[in-house]
Amino acid sequence: MDFAFDTVTEDLRERLLRFMDECVHPAEPAFEEQAAAAGWSPPPLLDDLKDEARKRGLWNLFLPGAHGAGLTNLQYAPLAEIMGRSPSIAPTATNCAAPDTGNMEVLSMFGSEWQREEWLRPLLDGEIRSAFAMTEPDVASSDATNIATSIVRDGGEYVINGRKWFISGAMNPNCKIFIVMGKTNPDAPKRRQQSMILVPRDTPGLHVKRGMHVFGYTDADHGGHAEVIFEDVRVPADNLIGEEGGGFAIAQARLGPGRIHHCMRLIGMAERAVELMCERALARTAFGKPIARQGVVQDWIAESRIRIEQLRLLVLKTAWLMDTVGNQGAHTEIQAIKISTPVTVEWILDKAIQVHGAGGVSQDFPLAALWAGARSLRLADGPDEVHKRSLAYRELKRFM
Amino acid sequence: MDFAFDTVTEDLRERLLRFMDECVHPAEPAFEEQAAAAGWSPPPLLDDLKDEARKRGLWNLFLPGAHGAGLTNLQYAPLAEIMGRSPSIAPTATNCAAPDTGNMEVLSMFGSEWQREEWLRPLLDGEIRSAFAMTEPDVASSDATNIATSIVRDGGEYVINGRKWFISGAMNPNCKIFIVMGKTNPDAPKRRQQSMILVPRDTPGLHVKRGMHVFGYTDADHGGHAEVIFEDVRVPADNLIGEEGGGFAIAQARLGPGRIHHCMRLIGMAERAVELMCERALARTAFGKPIARQGVVQDWIAESRIRIEQLRLLVLKTAWLMDTVGNQGAHTEIQAIKISTPVTVEWILDKAIQVHGAGGVSQDFPLAALWAGARSLRLADGPDEVHKRSLAYRELKRFM
Amino acid sequence: MDFAFDTVTEDLRERLLRFMDECVHPAEPAFEEQAAAAGWSPPPLLDDLKDEARKRGLWNLFLPGAHGAGLTNLQYAPLAEIMGRSPSIAPTATNCAAPDTGNMEVLSMFGSEWQREEWLRPLLDGEIRSAFAMTEPDVASSDATNIATSIVRDGGEYVINGRKWFISGAMNPNCKIFIVMGKTNPDAPKRRQQSMILVPRDTPGLHVKRGMHVFGYTDADHGGHAEVIFEDVRVPADNLIGEEGGGFAIAQARLGPGRIHHCMRLIGMAERAVELMCERALARTAFGKPIARQGVVQDWIAESRIRIEQLRLLVLKTAWLMDTVGNQGAHTEIQAIKISTPVTVEWILDKAIQVHGAGGVSQDFPLAALWAGARSLRLADGPDEVHKRSLAYRELKRFM
Amino acid sequence: MDFAFDTVTEDLRERLLRFMDECVHPAEPAFEEQAAAAGWSPPPLLDDLKDEARKRGLWNLFLPGAHGAGLTNLQYAPLAEIMGRSPSIAPTATNCAAPDTGNMEVLSMFGSEWQREEWLRPLLDGEIRSAFAMTEPDVASSDATNIATSIVRDGGEYVINGRKWFISGAMNPNCKIFIVMGKTNPDAPKRRQQSMILVPRDTPGLHVKRGMHVFGYTDADHGGHAEVIFEDVRVPADNLIGEEGGGFAIAQARLGPGRIHHCMRLIGMAERAVELMCERALARTAFGKPIARQGVVQDWIAESRIRIEQLRLLVLKTAWLMDTVGNQGAHTEIQAIKISTPVTVEWILDKAIQVHGAGGVSQDFPLAALWAGARSLRLADGPDEVHKRSLAYRELKRFM
Repeated sequence: MDFAFDTVTEDLRERLLRFMDECVHPAEPAFEEQAAAAGWSPPPLLDDLKDEARKRGLWNLFLPGAHGAGLTNLQYAPLAEIMGRSPSIAPTATNCAAPDTGNMEVLSMFGSEWQREEWLRPLLDGEIRSAFAMTEPDVASSDATNIATSIVRDGGEYVINGRKWFISGAMNPNCKIFIVMGKTNPDAPKRRQQSMILVPRDTPGLHVKRGMHVFGYTDADHGGHAEVIFEDVRVPADNLIGEEGGGFAIAQARLGPGRIHHCMRLIGMAERAVELMCERALARTAFGKPIARQGVVQDWIAESRIRIEQLRLLVLKTAWLMDTVGNQGAHTEIQAIKISTPVTVEWILDKAIQVHGAGGVSQDFPLAALWAGARSLRLADGPDEVHKRSLAYRELKRFM
Repeated sequence: MDFAFDTVTEDLRERLLRFMDECVHPAEPAFEEQAAAAGWSPPPLLDDLKDEARKRGLWNLFLPGAHGAGLTNLQYAPLAEIMGRSPSIAPTATNCAAPDTGNMEVLSMFGSEWQREEWLRPLLDGEIRSAFAMTEPDVASSDATNIATSIVRDGGEYVINGRKWFISGAMNPNCKIFIVMGKTNPDAPKRRQQSMILVPRDTPGLHVKRGMHVFGYTDADHGGHAEVIFEDVRVPADNLIGEEGGGFAIAQARLGPGRIHHCMRLIGMAERAVELMCERALARTAFGKPIARQGVVQDWIAESRIRIEQLRLLVLKTAWLMDTVGNQGAHTEIQAIKISTPVTVEWILDKAIQVHGAGGVSQDFPLAALWAGARSLRLADGPDEVHKRSLAYRELKRFM
Repeated sequence: MDFAFDTVTEDLRERLLRFMDECVHPAEPAFEEQAAAAGWSPPPLLDDLKDEARKRGLWNLFLPGAHGAGLTNLQYAPLAEIMGRSPSIAPTATNCAAPDTGNMEVLSMFGSEWQREEWLRPLLDGEIRSAFAMTEPDVASSDATNIATSIVRDGGEYVINGRKWFISGAMNPNCKIFIVMGKTNPDAPKRRQQSMILVPRDTPGLHVKRGMHVFGYTDADHGGHAEVIFEDVRVPADNLIGEEGGGFAIAQARLGPGRIHHCMRLIGMAERAVELMCERALARTAFGKPIARQGVVQDWIAESRIRIEQLRLLVLKTAWLMDTVGNQGAHTEIQAIKISTPVTVEWILDKAIQVHGAGGVSQDFPLAALWAGARSLRLADGPDEVHKRSLAYRELKRFM
Repeated sequence: MDFAFDTVTEDLRERLLRFMDECVHPAEPAFEEQAAAAGWSPPPLLDDLKDEARKRGLWNLFLPGAHGAGLTNLQYAPLAEIMGRSPSIAPTATNCAAPDTGNMEVLSMFGSEWQREEWLRPLLDGEIRSAFAMTEPDVASSDATNIATSIVRDGGEYVINGRKWFISGAMNPNCKIFIVMGKTNPDAPKRRQQSMILVPRDTPGLHVKRGMHVFGYTDADHGGHAEVIFEDVRVPADNLIGEEGGGFAIAQARLGPGRIHHCMRLIGMAERAVELMCERALARTAFGKPIARQGVVQDWIAESRIRIEQLRLLVLKTAWLMDTVGNQGAHTEIQAIKISTPVTVEWILDKAIQVHGAGGVSQDFPLAALWAGARSLRLADGPDEVHKRSLAYRELKRFM
């Protein structure tokens, strides 16, 4: 048992931290300005940052194997944390932003040669963006068997009908390709009914209808969260990823690493929140002393530190398990971090906001927007309650 | 001891509920549409609703004494709860919306005859709106002695310099008058340094600079929350409300009833959240049964009911105390409801959101916006922590 | 709506407070000493206190109607709170102690003339004590249909077999009569299977086996919590209370007032805990200042006050509902106070203990013992979770 | 970074688990019986278990260096967790029980040759027990500078006067030696005033007065928690451990490993609680289904698992830090585990109790007693609040 990072990780952490300090954090004010003017498109300065990151060898770090940087989950995890400190810029600048990351993993693992050439290559190069269309408004999507979108074979094509929402990134006009989850085989066993299929943005019948809000935020700078309608959308049969009925298995494989990324980025946000909370508490005076000297504020700071330390170790151990025994062996831990990270980071952000007074809920600090992101992750990929029930079943099974 | 409402209250509740059912709730969809197009102005349909409310005798219900409906706090409180069920429309439609309510109270109690004629009359008639400019960005405003805006006598005028923010309603162009809190007497004892003064919107030097966001919301439909700059703003000396140094006392008097209004409206929101939560839980199926049958959801519903019942009784008792022994005698209770109501209602809204899945955080349900409102009330008029400390001091004093 | 006590209540409160100050609190140290030496019997000084209470007209205050003091639930509730400040002495001294109170109610409402003469009279006179034997070790007793004890008619007798535990008061040799809940009609509809029957202590086959502990406490001073075995226990048929199959209905009727008593006594304990917490916080110095000046301690004190105020109002309103619309109409509220009171008072006691340091968990302060009492009430009469589920069903029904 | 145990640890875990299964758990019922009859002495069967443990090489595992098993903190920690599953027996059986462990560490590191020969040897051999007398009833002992016991040099002797309480193990007549903390140099700088000194049990003037209770428990089987009076107690000058004024430093050195032991044992208790909770939830039926199928119970089980996994990793990392950078470098983490472990384990035990119904609070299950142990550790070695404040200061310092 050893809690030190290996040398590959330490080297990349150092280089990434330097990139953050030299390029990312200084760009934050301009990013906000450009974002306010850019509509649903990403702020243009991202292009320069992407060039710079690529030049520095900080590119596609998330992707194991030959297509990417070849890091293990445990090696990439601490890098994701660092990126999480500037979550609107750093992941995109390094081509490590969701949902492209998961989509590239899917294409890398399950895509045909043609699919990889057509869609994986430009994604790896950061030329285009992509979306992952799973959640539906009309059903509880946490239960994958509820998915209602149909994918019906018709000669050499598939015909897609359905309604999706909260499709992150899809409002961005440069989001060129959708991976769509739907039912090809409604009569098969529950977990063999679904398939995934590639749908280019400009396919007739695909309507990107509107951006969903998240506590008032549109998240326009990273392409929003779209409601998307599929009306008799036709694509060639070889757009199907893997085989018919393989959608559920692909979705499972896609989940694991994404959870690590999300959780580590959230921990990065939490660290930034603690910094802001401490700095504000030291700078602000009320009733004759800095609020850093108030017991309740100290309690929040201590609790934040304690909770972050525990959380990070669990996420790192989960990454290690995925590397050593695979997603299946890490099932309990993957659910555990999905449940505990958003709610913990939400709590820390809430306290940081409270220390900031009215300013904390406003656009003058990043805290409220980060909070909305953390809060919505208590629902994304299924509400916490679904995951807790599943985790409890597994625990109970040990005693049956 | 008797927990039944009196007949005046019962009669008004019935009439107000009918107004809600017949006029307010049906107008909600159109309100949203108009609001989206109206910029910082209020949706035009409010004018018709105001006429209708006035015709029905549901006007200025909040205001005791001859200028208003003459109700006690205890009589008005349950009406405020009903209005809270549609918080963007009902309070404005009945001319019972903050901050006008507090401002009318101030003018009614402390205004000169001229001030009442010039500003109270059009406010009572719902012709104009008003703002209350107290909070400042540069200091912890919960400590009133921190206030930095200066009000300096210069011949027959006062000259005002300072920066305020989160001035609710001030982005609305029909907000014609500001009550500004500042320091006239910096060398007086701590609570005799401040004064309040009337500043018409079009006074040179008054700049309404920008709308502050509250978790991504601009609250444009009720005039937003403005940052306002006062640069050498000059007004006639008789714009001062009451006497020099009287600002702190006026602020204290203004607080009590406003707390009742805010808290009862929040309870109305909580009741609406419980309704939405129950309806959704009954309508939505996951893993083979309505989520209303899941134990954790039932736990949330039960807890929500229990917390609301307790909270409402405490707010009502506080109103009763204010009516029978005055604001001073109700000091502990006024603080208690200020502390416990926002955090409790925030909790209920969070659970209602969770039951709604991704939709809960979006614009398709009112829950996320109500949540942002409740959350920000944990900071408005001073963070909870300041009030808790003060309440604890009073408790400890009993044993000194 | 009126939050003031009526004159009858005010008068009795004053007299009871005087009794507490003059007789009960001064007896506390001697009570502890005698209790340590008295085994399972009550400390002898209680007899004098009972005489004194009776002389002062503070006797059987809990009992409505002609057999008792004739108070409403709303009138008795604040008296129960006062008694709760010295929960080992005051209820017994005034003949208002559980489980006699509930048992006297049952006999008063459902007992035959013979049963009332034989058992109610000496209970009203405080000559004997009684027990209520419902909970069973082998089943989840919160589900009354689980009850396994059998009561079988055999000629002019009933034969009882079963095992009960946590039968409060039964270790006291002066506990002369048991009201036993069991099944007479196992084939009847679920709520018509149970009956209640009187079993004198000295009946052959009744074994009071051992005292159950509650977090290390035996509660010997009020007769402990016994495990009781019934082996072919035979009693005359006219020992049955009411009719065969009526046990569930009697149990329901017995519950309501008992809940009010328990909750108000717990609130009395909470008030005492706040006093002790404040006094200790003012007296104890650490790191150069009284711990009363530490923000976290102030937060606990404020929260305690806020929670008590809300809780008390809800219990009082529940009492008022029971008086005005009956137990059935107060169903939701009766469950609400059963759920919220123990957990809230437990929280307050926990904080008071924390302020006392190591002494807080010890026999040198009453806090740890009070805590154990509050904690066990989260389980007594069914765990909170059962009541929450039931309350939620009722809430959901409004929307079905 | 590697989350697997090393081979030494794996081997010892296996042997210890076998010892638990073959010897410790089977002895639990007899232990309870003997304990009930043994007064303040340890149950006699412990002697056999000690012989057996020694034979198996499971002896003094806690002690690094030549005097003990020579394990690192990280190697010993998982063994302490296993012992914690039977906390009354396993630590004593393996001679790894507090406070002997800390006392042996002190003598091993700071004792003179004479002191080691006289007292360390029989402690290492498990022949005698020892006590550590630090906490005082009259002051907040979390602030070490408050300590009032005086140790005054008088010729070749020291004279000790003071009052201590919660001196664990001291009621056991076989507790032969006390390490006493007191002030030798009241005029020195704050952290140079205290010294530690050895006081044999039979020294005139040392009165072991009474056992303090912990939520009704006397903990007699491991020697209780004594109040001890020192009245003109005289010991030879060479009983002083280390040098005059060195007491604070020794206390600091003593703390670190003890925290690891306590926390890991608590985690062992938590694991046992989860087992009991799951088994009970599967075995118990209410309202027609096993309570394991109730959502709220599943939520508790899932939360318990998630919290334990996080906690254990933090404790293990703390052990690793102590091994690699020393106590000082692990300061934040040592405080973090002191704060988070008892409160987390207390929460889990509370839920396990709730699942057990009334039985959970009784002597029929170990849960209530374990709960009392966990609860009291929120106070032992200073209340959580003191540690949180200190941790927060360190966090804030990073930004000063």
